[in-house]
Amino acid sequence: MIRSLHRYCIAFTVVLLSACSVTPRQDGGESQAGAATAATLASWNDTRAKRSIVDFVTLVTTPESKDFIPRADRIAVFDNDGTLWPEQPASVQLVFALQRVKTVAGRHPEWKRQEPFRSILKGNLRNVAASGDAGSMRLLATAHAGMTSEQFAALVHEWFDSSSDPRFNRPYADLAYQPMLELLAYLRANGFKTYLVTGGDVEFVREVAQRMYGIPPEQVIGSTVKYRYSQTNGAISLTRLAQVDTLVDGAAKPLAIDRVIGRRPVIAFGNADGDAPMLEWTSAGDGPRLAALVHHTDAEREYQYDRTSKSGKLDKGLDEAGAKGWLVVDMKDDWNTVFKPASATTSAAASAPAHWA
Amino acid sequence: MIRSLHRYCIAFTVVLLSACSVTPRQDGGESQAGAATAATLASWNDTRAKRSIVDFVTLVTTPESKDFIPRADRIAVFDNDGTLWPEQPASVQLVFALQRVKTVAGRHPEWKRQEPFRSILKGNLRNVAASGDAGSMRLLATAHAGMTSEQFAALVHEWFDSSSDPRFNRPYADLAYQPMLELLAYLRANGFKTYLVTGGDVEFVREVAQRMYGIPPEQVIGSTVKYRYSQTNGAISLTRLAQVDTLVDGAAKPLAIDRVIGRRPVIAFGNADGDAPMLEWTSAGDGPRLAALVHHTDAEREYQYDRTSKSGKLDKGLDEAGAKGWLVVDMKDDWNTVFKPASATTSAAASAPAHWA
Repeated sequence: MIRSLHRYCIAFTVVLLSACSVTPRQDGGESQAGAATAATLASWNDTRAKRSIVDFVTLVTTPESKDFIPRADRIAVFDNDGTLWPEQPASVQLVFALQRVKTVAGRHPEWKRQEPFRSILKGNLRNVAASGDAGSMRLLATAHAGMTSEQFAALVHEWFDSSSDPRFNRPYADLAYQPMLELLAYLRANGFKTYLVTGGDVEFVREVAQRMYGIPPEQVIGSTVKYRYSQTNGAISLTRLAQVDTLVDGAAKPLAIDRVIGRRPVIAFGNADGDAPMLEWTSAGDGPRLAALVHHTDAEREYQYDRTSKSGKLDKGLDEAGAKGWLVVDMKDDWNTVFKPASATTSAAASAPAHWA
Repeated sequence: MIRSLHRYCIAFTVVLLSACSVTPRQDGGESQAGAATAATLASWNDTRAKRSIVDFVTLVTTPESKDFIPRADRIAVFDNDGTLWPEQPASVQLVFALQRVKTVAGRHPEWKRQEPFRSILKGNLRNVAASGDAGSMRLLATAHAGMTSEQFAALVHEWFDSSSDPRFNRPYADLAYQPMLELLAYLRANGFKTYLVTGGDVEFVREVAQRMYGIPPEQVIGSTVKYRYSQTNGAISLTRLAQVDTLVDGAAKPLAIDRVIGRRPVIAFGNADGDAPMLEWTSAGDGPRLAALVHHTDAEREYQYDRTSKSGKLDKGLDEAGAKGWLVVDMKDDWNTVFKPASATTSAAASAPAHWA
């Protein structure tokens, strides 16, 4: 209940602060089809990317269209890191996990001799930054083992309230890509149910998905650790164990979508080769489908990386996009805004380790 | 697309046939809070069970109540076998799996020497009927290995269209408990999101959950086999393997709820000791919760079984219900109708093996 109240206070604050931008509206509360127009996509330039999106949505939501898709089947899936918010120089989840490793290192003298802890404690973050979702899930599992789901959620919540991205000097929860928030709102207004399908820990991402993207917990699919269900003196708890259970990346993405949603998506957005199976699975459905990759081409406003990046590598996906009919969104050319305008009152103290190279 | 059309045709037929009963309305399409009254629960007698349900729903949905629960947090979970439809003399899924074993036995000469196949092929179903969800999942996994998700779904769909329960001489899809359909409708009308949490195969149950209960695929949580994601000559498929991945029973129920929904339910209904952890997990949440067991006390209209039943055993749950504040629904006393009135046109040829003893 306290957690719920906390969430509502945060949500209220976010609404106040984001009055000048798209408010991440609760999924499920969409208006009637046709009410939303392409004007919602104000941060998208009038290029092929935006036109492709609007044409597609119009095609499948116009009742007279031969490609009309009933509302119940309008499922759109989005990767999170690098698709809805930045993942450089390291994923936000990894920054969070590293801080916890340092906090609890005193209880683990053996870490001074064990990798990756030894390097982390010495401040050498190069290898761990390149270890991707698998690496950060292993760290999370180890560093947060023994916490209940509620304790973990409270810790994540608190961390988001007190941590900022050092380059942009803004809370991480402020760094959703504005064009993607608009896209989520546009799709919901057209009857789509929007899901996150992330390699990040499902509990970590759920804590921020509602306030950042308006996506409720049950529409977040993510990696998981193993849990223990226990009943001690009448108290029931789900306790996190030090072991990764599922890693939702690559081919595990379509498998997780099938298991949780049970319908093939109509729209899929990703940004890396690890998202390719999700896009393939979506594209292979009967009827029209929209699969797209966000291409990070904007070193000035965000980051520029693709084929040789150690995290969020996009190589094969770029080669195959043309042949597969996938839309490639060029961040520099297709977006006139990357982040919503900063509000001085939302910045918090910087807390991220700065030495990733 | 063909599968979708098929589904709509079926849905249309069901709507026509069930004009005299509660139509399983699509979840998510609920009316405003307050619009639904207890009158919806016409098949419930005016006993303590019905009053407890109505009082609880009124308590948590009245905005002025100190126990008011916001719409987004109104999650209700239901076991399937024995809670929403019969599970005796064997679960419907087991009947389906057995038929497949017989159909494909010619390709598996080794089954003549392997249990449980040997007994099944000889018509001795006693042990397999007592093997519960675990046994039927193992059979399903083996007998349907190598099928894609789509092929499996089509087979299940076809089977439901052509198979009937031999005792009631009605299609299995007609055998939802009418009071439970009314309860689902009543909860939805009061802003609850209704989920199935079943030990049955998630793909099997999804094929029938929409048309029977109005519950869409993404609100069905169930057991799973392992899958292979493969891309062959441009064709993408998820292929069922001969191995059970997760069995959603006992403590695995709250774990699966946490993983998929990410919120603790407000209401949980089950009928067996295997549902107890789901009820405990629900009851242990902050604020008011409703946990309930359907007690099979009606040999005449359905079945009578509890403490010594080989499947759907309810023993510890009955002992603990009082102390834990769980509602026990007495099928004989609390329900004035068990199944919706039969319609002559919906019966199909009986196909279930009859020798369970």
